[in-house]
Amino acid sequence: MEVKNKYVSIKANINGAPEESDFEIKVENLSLTVEPESKVVVVKNLFVSIDPYQINRMKSQSSSQTSISYATAITPGEVIDTYGVGRVLVSHRPDFKKGDLVAGLLTWGEYTVVKEGSLLNKLDPSLAFPLSYHVGVFGFSGLAAYGGFFEVCKPKPGEKVFVSAASGSIGHLVGQYAKSLGCYVVGSDGSQEKVNFLKETLGFDDAFNYKQETDLKSALKRCFPQGIDVYFDNVGGKMLEAAVANMNSFSRVTICGVISEYTNASTRAASDVKDIVYKRIRIQGFLAADFMPVYADFLSKTVEYLQDGKLKTMEDISQGVDSIPSAFIGLFNGDNIGKKIVKVADE
Amino acid sequence: MEVKNKYVSIKANINGAPEESDFEIKVENLSLTVEPESKVVVVKNLFVSIDPYQINRMKSQSSSQTSISYATAITPGEVIDTYGVGRVLVSHRPDFKKGDLVAGLLTWGEYTVVKEGSLLNKLDPSLAFPLSYHVGVFGFSGLAAYGGFFEVCKPKPGEKVFVSAASGSIGHLVGQYAKSLGCYVVGSDGSQEKVNFLKETLGFDDAFNYKQETDLKSALKRCFPQGIDVYFDNVGGKMLEAAVANMNSFSRVTICGVISEYTNASTRAASDVKDIVYKRIRIQGFLAADFMPVYADFLSKTVEYLQDGKLKTMEDISQGVDSIPSAFIGLFNGDNIGKKIVKVADE
Repeated sequence: MEVKNKYVSIKANINGAPEESDFEIKVENLSLTVEPESKVVVVKNLFVSIDPYQINRMKSQSSSQTSISYATAITPGEVIDTYGVGRVLVSHRPDFKKGDLVAGLLTWGEYTVVKEGSLLNKLDPSLAFPLSYHVGVFGFSGLAAYGGFFEVCKPKPGEKVFVSAASGSIGHLVGQYAKSLGCYVVGSDGSQEKVNFLKETLGFDDAFNYKQETDLKSALKRCFPQGIDVYFDNVGGKMLEAAVANMNSFSRVTICGVISEYTNASTRAASDVKDIVYKRIRIQGFLAADFMPVYADFLSKTVEYLQDGKLKTMEDISQGVDSIPSAFIGLFNGDNIGKKIVKVADE
Repeated sequence: MEVKNKYVSIKANINGAPEESDFEIKVENLSLTVEPESKVVVVKNLFVSIDPYQINRMKSQSSSQTSISYATAITPGEVIDTYGVGRVLVSHRPDFKKGDLVAGLLTWGEYTVVKEGSLLNKLDPSLAFPLSYHVGVFGFSGLAAYGGFFEVCKPKPGEKVFVSAASGSIGHLVGQYAKSLGCYVVGSDGSQEKVNFLKETLGFDDAFNYKQETDLKSALKRCFPQGIDVYFDNVGGKMLEAAVANMNSFSRVTICGVISEYTNASTRAASDVKDIVYKRIRIQGFLAADFMPVYADFLSKTVEYLQDGKLKTMEDISQGVDSIPSAFIGLFNGDNIGKKIVKVADE
């Protein structure tokens, strides 16, 4: 048996901001016949994650200066893998049966052929939440927020916390984790609508629209007259430079992403390194997968907070594989509030 | 009784590279009469420390953007405090007697009136080393090297360690601590003479003259084909940017000083923050005084290494208070190899 699998690919490497013309929607014939001894699992994709970091995988990997490549490169014309939720269509493995709901490494397409060893987990049927939550708040966005904030920043109640891209997939969770700990939380984002959302819906203590500020250092000085103890950075660039100038002694900066720099390296900014010395600032990068060892803690706390109403998760869901390119491009234009997800098919 | 006290002061705040004309040698009458109930201790200075960070205390403190001042400002016309070694001339305190050798916060001058609460410790007479060692290798230079390397970087045997300004007061000790741990050590510095010194006298595995390199990233790539695990940064600027590009996953950068930026903020460079994220680099600043809790460990290990010949300490000693301005200015021209000290008087 065979199905038509519609999927997204890039036509060539993308080295600046992504545009619609960089992508194509392709259709392939996909066999649903799996040999009885095969460990392959065929999944029908339901919700797939749309994340800014994918742009780094789409770049030409010719950079000779760095000793690592930015995760596995995406090959033009090929399927693009992504975290997502789906339903098992075909499996001869004892651990996955037809009809099982799963989360793991799927694709920007309608179906995924999941090879042995690739990330795939059965969903816990006792979790009475929308399926899309497994892409966002229970997925790597949530884990990045939780691990980056608690594990890297080691925050204490009462500390002053700044979050950039604060209404984004990760930022909006970080701010609420920080509030739940008893921190003072200020977010920055790119529109008045988002600022209102942070303050009125999510309970941030303050927020500002960076596009309306002439001087980011002054903006942060105004919001943090006593300085910043923890900065959860999602943007890099000038905001990181401004934050370093406003950090307190023994403060921590965790860098989760640098979306302002992904599509334009000229936006990099030079922090005052003297500040890092005199204020003993710790700056640290991380990847969400580093926190798999604390996944169980993360999940139980997050479920509890959602049930208690301490945590609200926001999702911005587009419909269908055809919407994936514009959903992805929109990330770099600040189109989304909360986690950007594409719903590929009905459950 | 009274003495003439010759001391160095700045004529006005210094905001660029220091020059001879920025300083003046002044003479004051200093009373050696101390009231019996006074806790003041008058010290005859013997060796005083000459450190780059003092330039930050000499700047105009008008910077409004930062929430901290860079240590206590130095006032034009006044004495300048510094770490040093001296001999007690007058004391009514039970813990300090006339003739005691002491180390603590003295001045760029011939005598110091040490107030109660100011750093002052009696030297351990059992330590059979030159008195000047208490200014350098047993002082804050040694503590910075030890604490910054072991406590902040958490190095492991076999790791690849890079040290900039490697023949300087702190760098030359860091490299030898790293060798003693079994690390692979490369240093950078500003002359062929220093490169030879690092390799031939101190046993660095490799070294390079940054002034002879057209591309620092390539230089580091050549010296560290497998990448850098630990970077002990004394210079900041372009070297820090180049190091970040060559760091390995889960590597650590400790920032001890940024001499390239102290006198010229335009030398700041923008590291690729994406590298910090993907390689989970930890960047951390420190001040030597943070490591006072491990001073005893530091001292015993350092004494042992010196006695075993595992550690050599280099000193560059000028003579007399009049030489202090040129000794200080020379730090920014790379004049010194090892710890810069001025000998103010014979023991």
